[in-house]
Amino acid sequence: MSQKGFTLWFTGLSGAGKTTLADRVYDELKERRVLKVEKLDGDVVRTNLSKGLGFSKEDRDTNIRRIGFVCDLLSRNDVIAIASAISPYRAVRDENRALIGSDRFVEVYVEATLDTLVQRDVKGLYKKALAGEIKEFTGVSDPYEAPLHPEVHVNSSTETIDESFDAIIGYLEARGLIEPLPEQAGYSAAEEQAVSAHLEALGYL
Amino acid sequence: MSQKGFTLWFTGLSGAGKTTLADRVYDELKERRVLKVEKLDGDVVRTNLSKGLGFSKEDRDTNIRRIGFVCDLLSRNDVIAIASAISPYRAVRDENRALIGSDRFVEVYVEATLDTLVQRDVKGLYKKALAGEIKEFTGVSDPYEAPLHPEVHVNSSTETIDESFDAIIGYLEARGLIEPLPEQAGYSAAEEQAVSAHLEALGYL
Repeated sequence: MSQKGFTLWFTGLSGAGKTTLADRVYDELKERRVLKVEKLDGDVVRTNLSKGLGFSKEDRDTNIRRIGFVCDLLSRNDVIAIASAISPYRAVRDENRALIGSDRFVEVYVEATLDTLVQRDVKGLYKKALAGEIKEFTGVSDPYEAPLHPEVHVNSSTETIDESFDAIIGYLEARGLIEPLPEQAGYSAAEEQAVSAHLEALGYL
Repeated sequence: MSQKGFTLWFTGLSGAGKTTLADRVYDELKERRVLKVEKLDGDVVRTNLSKGLGFSKEDRDTNIRRIGFVCDLLSRNDVIAIASAISPYRAVRDENRALIGSDRFVEVYVEATLDTLVQRDVKGLYKKALAGEIKEFTGVSDPYEAPLHPEVHVNSSTETIDESFDAIIGYLEARGLIEPLPEQAGYSAAEEQAVSAHLEALGYL
């Protein structure tokens, strides 16, 4: 019955699929009646924690530390905190891991090639960044330091969202951070067919 | 067994005793084995949430909203959040009350006269503020809007810390936000004397 808190930290380039996956995981946990889950994504963070911060390394680090501080407050009080932020610098991500504790920190690296992202470019940001209209754009004109040992590594250039989602949920279940769903009740399609055939042979159908 | 979260919000001038009282309440709750309590006081907030903010009305409001955002995240997940911040503007305190919900927001106004604070002046700030060396100093050169209907109103010019502390704990118990201590077991001194006398009369002592 008692829930253990942890932080699920999505990192990766803009447009890689962090928020899409974070939303899917959040919805799944809510559907499973996990009561204490909080999402700290781009909009929430920009409005409530990071107003006034820019895109210098220092400001980005402050932003990531701040989100980490809140994730820690939540995780250590049995809440699951789901954060998605580009969080381009490895050192400050690792600071958060140290603060929150390795037993409660799950880093999900959402990889995607720049080619994929430029093709996708839902918000038209890559086009502008490549044209030099946006400065300090991670992956184009600003560095991204990929995690060396993320707990989960998904790749939206080569996997479907469902596959990435399954990998994340599977990891959390395998590690005992969330409870696996009870085995599906009932029969598989093949079993059902066999049962039907059997009942028919006996004259019940 | 299950704990209800709420926010205990201390407001008042610098030096009025907010942090002293917040610390006392925090320690008391820890002693009573209330497991989920978090303190958001000056230092914690300045380091982790408010770096870069100044003392303009806008920056002060941003700071108070930000603390409120975190208190809300905690309170709605069954954590007791204890915040102490000058929080001079009524409107933004009331915004936090609306966000967190009146059923979970307990405003404690820690009053003290300017005379008391200037005499006390532990950090020497009032002297500097009165000499014009610190600009935008609440209560001297910057406004403080006292709460109109705080849940608890204490006054460190006229009460001891113990009295203020008792008023706060008493309020929280009376409202059912924390459990009252079980009645002291055993006898009072007078009762004990009576029992001893009785036993002695019977020849047992």
